[in-house]
Amino acid sequence: MAIQRYKLTIAYDGTHFHGWQEQNPPDGPSLRTVQGVLRQAVGRTVGQPVDLIGASRTDTGVHALGQTAAFTAETRIPLERLASAINSRLTDEVDVRQVRIVDAGFDPIRDAKSKQYRYRIHNAGHRPVLTRSQVYHCWYDLDETAMTDAAARLIGEHDFAAFANAGHGRETTVRTVHDCRIERPSDLPELHIVISGNGFLYNMVRIIAGTLVEVGRGHWPADCIDVLFDARDRAEAGPTLPPQGLCLEWIRY
Amino acid sequence: MAIQRYKLTIAYDGTHFHGWQEQNPPDGPSLRTVQGVLRQAVGRTVGQPVDLIGASRTDTGVHALGQTAAFTAETRIPLERLASAINSRLTDEVDVRQVRIVDAGFDPIRDAKSKQYRYRIHNAGHRPVLTRSQVYHCWYDLDETAMTDAAARLIGEHDFAAFANAGHGRETTVRTVHDCRIERPSDLPELHIVISGNGFLYNMVRIIAGTLVEVGRGHWPADCIDVLFDARDRAEAGPTLPPQGLCLEWIRY
Repeated sequence: MAIQRYKLTIAYDGTHFHGWQEQNPPDGPSLRTVQGVLRQAVGRTVGQPVDLIGASRTDTGVHALGQTAAFTAETRIPLERLASAINSRLTDEVDVRQVRIVDAGFDPIRDAKSKQYRYRIHNAGHRPVLTRSQVYHCWYDLDETAMTDAAARLIGEHDFAAFANAGHGRETTVRTVHDCRIERPSDLPELHIVISGNGFLYNMVRIIAGTLVEVGRGHWPADCIDVLFDARDRAEAGPTLPPQGLCLEWIRY
Repeated sequence: MAIQRYKLTIAYDGTHFHGWQEQNPPDGPSLRTVQGVLRQAVGRTVGQPVDLIGASRTDTGVHALGQTAAFTAETRIPLERLASAINSRLTDEVDVRQVRIVDAGFDPIRDAKSKQYRYRIHNAGHRPVLTRSQVYHCWYDLDETAMTDAAARLIGEHDFAAFANAGHGRETTVRTVHDCRIERPSDLPELHIVISGNGFLYNMVRIIAGTLVEVGRGHWPADCIDVLFDARDRAEAGPTLPPQGLCLEWIRY
């Protein structure tokens, strides 16, 4: 038995959580967060309190299929049983999908090479029912060709200042988007915006989704993206679409 | 303004309902059912109490994309606005998708020609998270070829006595299955059993799904279906799979 650092891959339904990040308001009870319930489940499993750091601070209502977190602990539980041991202490809203042993210095935030998000738009004249906590409902027809054109303009290294809400607290707003594309799943009345990159600013994917929907509705031309890169003005980009359409799909190291 | 009979097509998430059918226990409060909330919403919309009859008595937890119901009323609301008027009085768990005027004698149960159900199986070594209220989780590998063989044997006119739970209260257990097939959606770790026919006995789809899973796991050969038709014994068929995997997709008239 030795002290080891563990990397977790986690899926969760963000609907009933106040986001990923633990919050302890000075007056009042602490809010229920994914990090909070997971840290407690891991601590009880390994029999000692742990520090648990996540790669991405997803907002209230945002989902994940591939969030990554890390903790350091000493435990007799074999590696192959650790995921189910932790899962047995979690509700069915959170699922630890993989546990790996990593270098003692592994930092899930700093070491992340790229991430992929998916924004799901229910694009139909009727309301979503079964998927309602996982999609944004857009009643209007969307021009997929124009959206694909605009999405392609986001690829590459750019200054995404226009696509970040205040409070991002980052020194630079330059990021590299590796891919951005539009998908229409064959069996659902949905349109998805799939985007991967080396890092994302606060609300960046939801603002990009809001901007692409403006393009899809014909309000703005596809080359508004280039204008927004130059303007660097949040007020000129599209609205921040609601959180429930967003899902963190994977993080690569 | 004249008295008209209306046919509704309805989608709902059955998770938080005690099934379709209104129930009024002699001692205690009435249970929340889809029929109950829909009947009240329609009554308030048209300004008079209505009788509302549904085609299919779905169980607690079972979902629908194409349930059908009918009521007779007199209203000034134009036909094209009736669905949104009713929807404005419903939570986002229920959505009236279409309203049509039908013959005064229209009976949603008797006049139904065929129905289609889908049973969704989450077939993976990890738990479902985002879809957990809409799938049955099967951890084991399923042999799709054997299941497809067994599914094909269900097609046609047969005595489905072995596939009905006690309490079906029907004179005959002979039904015609028009189609039964296995689908694997490309973007989900799921296997679906899709079945259509002229009518279904109590729990018939969930017992068929339970039987096909036994075949898929290699416990029974595909021709067990023929044996079950002859045996007419519920105890020899597979288990009744849980309700949340089941969805009523459409009803044709």
